[in-house]
Amino acid sequence: MMGLSKENLKGLILALVSSGFIGASFIIKKQGLRRAAAASGVRAGFGGYYYLLEPLWWVGMITMIAGEVANFVAYAFAPAVLVTPLGALSIIVSAVLADIILKEKLHHLGILGCVMCIAGSIIIVIHAPKEQPIKSVQEIWDMATQPAFLAYGGSVIVLVFILVFHFAPKCGHTNVLVYTGICSLMGSLSVMSVKALGTSLKLTFEGKNQLIYPETWFFMLVVAICVIMQMNYLNKALDTFNTAIVSPIYYVMFTTLTILASVIMFKDWDGQSGGTIVSEICGFIVVLSGTVMLHATKDFERCPSFRGTGPSSPTLSTRLYSGNADFLVKQDEESGSPDSNFCSRRQESY
Amino acid sequence: MMGLSKENLKGLILALVSSGFIGASFIIKKQGLRRAAAASGVRAGFGGYYYLLEPLWWVGMITMIAGEVANFVAYAFAPAVLVTPLGALSIIVSAVLADIILKEKLHHLGILGCVMCIAGSIIIVIHAPKEQPIKSVQEIWDMATQPAFLAYGGSVIVLVFILVFHFAPKCGHTNVLVYTGICSLMGSLSVMSVKALGTSLKLTFEGKNQLIYPETWFFMLVVAICVIMQMNYLNKALDTFNTAIVSPIYYVMFTTLTILASVIMFKDWDGQSGGTIVSEICGFIVVLSGTVMLHATKDFERCPSFRGTGPSSPTLSTRLYSGNADFLVKQDEESGSPDSNFCSRRQESY
Repeated sequence: MMGLSKENLKGLILALVSSGFIGASFIIKKQGLRRAAAASGVRAGFGGYYYLLEPLWWVGMITMIAGEVANFVAYAFAPAVLVTPLGALSIIVSAVLADIILKEKLHHLGILGCVMCIAGSIIIVIHAPKEQPIKSVQEIWDMATQPAFLAYGGSVIVLVFILVFHFAPKCGHTNVLVYTGICSLMGSLSVMSVKALGTSLKLTFEGKNQLIYPETWFFMLVVAICVIMQMNYLNKALDTFNTAIVSPIYYVMFTTLTILASVIMFKDWDGQSGGTIVSEICGFIVVLSGTVMLHATKDFERCPSFRGTGPSSPTLSTRLYSGNADFLVKQDEESGSPDSNFCSRRQESY
Repeated sequence: MMGLSKENLKGLILALVSSGFIGASFIIKKQGLRRAAAASGVRAGFGGYYYLLEPLWWVGMITMIAGEVANFVAYAFAPAVLVTPLGALSIIVSAVLADIILKEKLHHLGILGCVMCIAGSIIIVIHAPKEQPIKSVQEIWDMATQPAFLAYGGSVIVLVFILVFHFAPKCGHTNVLVYTGICSLMGSLSVMSVKALGTSLKLTFEGKNQLIYPETWFFMLVVAICVIMQMNYLNKALDTFNTAIVSPIYYVMFTTLTILASVIMFKDWDGQSGGTIVSEICGFIVVLSGTVMLHATKDFERCPSFRGTGPSSPTLSTRLYSGNADFLVKQDEESGSPDSNFCSRRQESY
């Protein structure tokens, strides 16, 4: 249990690299946006697209894609129980770089949030389960078609249908849990299929061609469907509600459901002692708390509007599996008019 | 490592009972103070002593003493690495009861702080070292006189001397770290000697009389000196600075130094794996963060002055080994005029 396996170590390093890249990408893009705004005099939030001519913005975009790829590959090596919560570390990278480079001062409690994310991540890494080596895509197929996971997948699909056709038209625009719920439920299936696809491709690159099996193509189809659904509803959620509200709720629900799905499908907890599982859950709770705290305390300093308009949309659409670090980069240059009334109302509620 | 030993379990239960009693005692005493104020029309903070005639206040006082005794006995059974951080749980009991009974609403982030204290405590309990069974006071004496611990004790005494005679007259009234530093340094020696004394008394009650050995009496003397020093400087700190500033700093320094002292003297970490030790440290950091957060967010709602005047002094003098839960009970009924200027200055600094 203690001491990482070689595969887990690879997954861990990839997850850390991914978080570093994704966290940094927001800062680079933000710098690019600032430069573009300074050069053109038109801010992106007001309809300017000059940032597309700014090389720095593209460097940020490439950094982000590199981070996403690293994240994708990490799932091929280490269990989702390990990789998914580590996405929160991108938030820390983003917060620290924003503090250093963009001079956006981190709140005292935000620093505490960072410390907690790190402490929780260390606990998760120490207690992460060793993954059973997978030899073919059929093995994953067997896991995906075991009764317990079929029950999980079936419940997810039923719930998503109810949310999409019953609740979304009725209260999708008033209750933040509807769109984020759809994203999170689909997200847990996305990660499972991404993991299946990643493992298949890993095996293929190792010389055991898995592309000859229809299962590989099926998983590819599932990835596409889930990611499009998730993207679509995440954008809806961000268009309707404040990012500072959507992000922590989405992060908590998505990560929890993904771990649940992984534990059911890959039996991550089989053969682990009770103490180890409880430690993992505690570590996970600590990371979640740290994330929520970083989100919450960001408001204590300044309170711009975060509606997901302008160039932040393509950003978010590509980032579905990792922590939502982008909220930390204060998007005043990107957003339109700050809805200060809404802000003060929210601050009072604490 | 996983799975508690019988002795640890006893110590754990005693520590939990202690935290429950201590946490509850503040609420009961506060209720007593309210009743006394309502009956007499004079508030304690304004020089009234009617609360001494109020049975409820005495119930609170007895609950607190019972909690302190349970805490003292817990040290005889379980390592300080386990017992000391669990003191933070009294803060949660106090905060939750204040919310329910006194209707003093807990801040959203305060709830998160509670969750973190619990998660961190669970991690600490799971990874707590098994204590070597101690058969006589001489054994403890040997531990206390090993070179490493003598070096620790010597450094503590030298540091305390420097703080008391050099820094206290110069900047004791301007720098919060001077008085709290003295308390925390002495506190770590207090706990070690309390543990030695508790173990001796436990052995005596088990029929192995330890009172015939001079070592037992020596430890008793050390307890007395350390506790008086600690009490004296804690009251000085609270008289000079705001409780909301003193408490978290004191809690963090005191708990850290106590764990350090225990690890040196009782070799708690010998025979534990690296992963277990790191998990313990992370759990400890999480509890500390939760405590700091509870302290910090208390300010977000209301901001009375917390100068340690009136009936809070005897309270604090008896509570040196556990978490400082009393800060959570808003002492408006006990304190004099709220120094709102000071408050707003502090809130700005966040």
